[in-house]
Amino acid sequence: MFSPEDGAHMARALQLAARGRYSARPNPMVGCVLVNDGAIVGEGWHERAGEPHAEINALREAGEKARGAVAYVSLEPCAHHGKTPPCAMALIEAGVSKVIAAMPDPFEEVSGRGLEMLNESGIEATAGLMQSAAEALNAGFISRVTRGRPFVRLKIAASLDGAIAMESGESQWITGPEARADVQELRARSGAIMTGIGTVVADDPSLNVRLPEFDSAGEQPLRVVLDSRMRMPRKARMLTLPGETLVCHTAGHDASELAGAGATVQEFGAHGDVVNVFEVLAALAEREINDVLVEAGSRLAGYLLEKDLIDELVIYQSPHIMGSNTRGMFTTPTWSALADRRTLDITDTSRVGIDTRITARISD
Amino acid sequence: MFSPEDGAHMARALQLAARGRYSARPNPMVGCVLVNDGAIVGEGWHERAGEPHAEINALREAGEKARGAVAYVSLEPCAHHGKTPPCAMALIEAGVSKVIAAMPDPFEEVSGRGLEMLNESGIEATAGLMQSAAEALNAGFISRVTRGRPFVRLKIAASLDGAIAMESGESQWITGPEARADVQELRARSGAIMTGIGTVVADDPSLNVRLPEFDSAGEQPLRVVLDSRMRMPRKARMLTLPGETLVCHTAGHDASELAGAGATVQEFGAHGDVVNVFEVLAALAEREINDVLVEAGSRLAGYLLEKDLIDELVIYQSPHIMGSNTRGMFTTPTWSALADRRTLDITDTSRVGIDTRITARISD
Repeated sequence: MFSPEDGAHMARALQLAARGRYSARPNPMVGCVLVNDGAIVGEGWHERAGEPHAEINALREAGEKARGAVAYVSLEPCAHHGKTPPCAMALIEAGVSKVIAAMPDPFEEVSGRGLEMLNESGIEATAGLMQSAAEALNAGFISRVTRGRPFVRLKIAASLDGAIAMESGESQWITGPEARADVQELRARSGAIMTGIGTVVADDPSLNVRLPEFDSAGEQPLRVVLDSRMRMPRKARMLTLPGETLVCHTAGHDASELAGAGATVQEFGAHGDVVNVFEVLAALAEREINDVLVEAGSRLAGYLLEKDLIDELVIYQSPHIMGSNTRGMFTTPTWSALADRRTLDITDTSRVGIDTRITARISD
Repeated sequence: MFSPEDGAHMARALQLAARGRYSARPNPMVGCVLVNDGAIVGEGWHERAGEPHAEINALREAGEKARGAVAYVSLEPCAHHGKTPPCAMALIEAGVSKVIAAMPDPFEEVSGRGLEMLNESGIEATAGLMQSAAEALNAGFISRVTRGRPFVRLKIAASLDGAIAMESGESQWITGPEARADVQELRARSGAIMTGIGTVVADDPSLNVRLPEFDSAGEQPLRVVLDSRMRMPRKARMLTLPGETLVCHTAGHDASELAGAGATVQEFGAHGDVVNVFEVLAALAEREINDVLVEAGSRLAGYLLEKDLIDELVIYQSPHIMGSNTRGMFTTPTWSALADRRTLDITDTSRVGIDTRITARISD
């Protein structure tokens, strides 16, 4: 159905899409390649919400050469009038001969409409080429629009024997500078960075993006602190930094002082003695946050694991043995038998400096 | 100094040497290749103590073609009359033109003598081609003759979050069948398998080699149990199996009952409330054991780590999260700061079934 040339052009479209990884949110990353007579005549990607979609940028570059071209798009062209006119219409008007999308629009109410509109104009339009790569690229956007919650990625830095800190809390630095730089990349791709109040009190982290190329491209991710009893220090470093900090607490606490210190304060239901994370994630989705990076201690990590709320684990494993007077990765009070363990589906293992980065989904 | 052809022939000699991995102990593994006019005319390896050395086997295969040949040997030919006549003499008598050894004999009193004997007969004889590979192959033998103790290899099966068992002790099976088969290979290459009495009491392990190809080739490794207070059950499974079990205890315990049950019982000094492992390792070296594989719980593993007695770590890491109600890899009561950690030099990472095998030395 699809030729190797189709695959190569779609791979290029996905590569272009990824250029929007710091800036496209809350929109999906999309790339488009226009090919006429075997030659690429236009390329585009979606850079920023409110600005033109990938297809429009590619059509602009192609000009008259778009007529008769095949359009490769990493996501089904839109059929609705949003901040911009529908891309399906633009492709029709430009006279493309064929449209291949990597995946249909995941937003149920419009899914398939763009392809339909194209088909109705006599343009062959299909989806499904390199679909899993396209879905992985926009896992956050897809999660938000299909599940009503962001994609949750948990980052852990640990020794080879599974310690994330000494018992004293000492943890700087378990991993090397390359791994820490890689975490900056994870942060920059996320709409929010979540942590627990324990981590804030112990480490006073910044949880911001400090990449030189980020400043002009993206907005600082929302910092989210789960803080049921509102113990957040008014002098926490993150409150002094550019970007917003959301403190999530439970009922019965006075928000005014912390709000005065620059925090956004929001009340949520309780789940035992902690903030109901399901509610927090729903609220983040309402704020159009696609990806949440969790950087937390073992208690929040274990809680998310027990509740099956972790979509992806990124473990930076350092080549050290830290021994037994340490803190582990996950506090899992309800697990007592080997059968309680979770099985990982490791999707990538890479060397990052002297550390090993293990990326995994939880498979059962 | 050495040509690429020299390297290829030495690689072959090392490959031949490794054929003795189950059977050559307590002798080193040695391989020999004889090359005449660019063609291999004889190959040999040392199969078993008391049987001919690698050089003799290669000379036998070459017959008259050994005259003028270059001999590649993975270890300096011996110059002494042991169970067999000196190989250096045999090479001289066969009329080889040149001898290249991967490494000199590590046994200080005879090191260099074989090369000397050859040189004195007008045969060019040198050592140092692929020396580090040759040293890695015979790390156990070298350790025994140069340090008076075996090479200590610690095997650990753990989850990705560093657990070796649930708190209850449940640990069967953390890793998959391929990893367990790989451990059989580690056992088969070892002269002894060491564990602690806690593991024997909890798991009643066999600690034997169950490889089909092993029976005819090798002798069951000595099973060594560190059991300061002689708690070893008389009905322990390992006492019923072929091969010897050595129970190491401290003073003040009656050995007769356990000896009656088939164990070899030996008294050692105490180190706090445990058997002095340094003494045990020295005793194993006296028994001509080159390689000790430690399969133990976190207490003995931590003790060996703190005492810097681990020469190599082999960690089978399973793709699971086991959580916090678990036992860790190493109990290290004296470590409290991050600076106490040990840094690993990872020498190999391989996929074994669904698990990852990480081989490492401790670098500081």
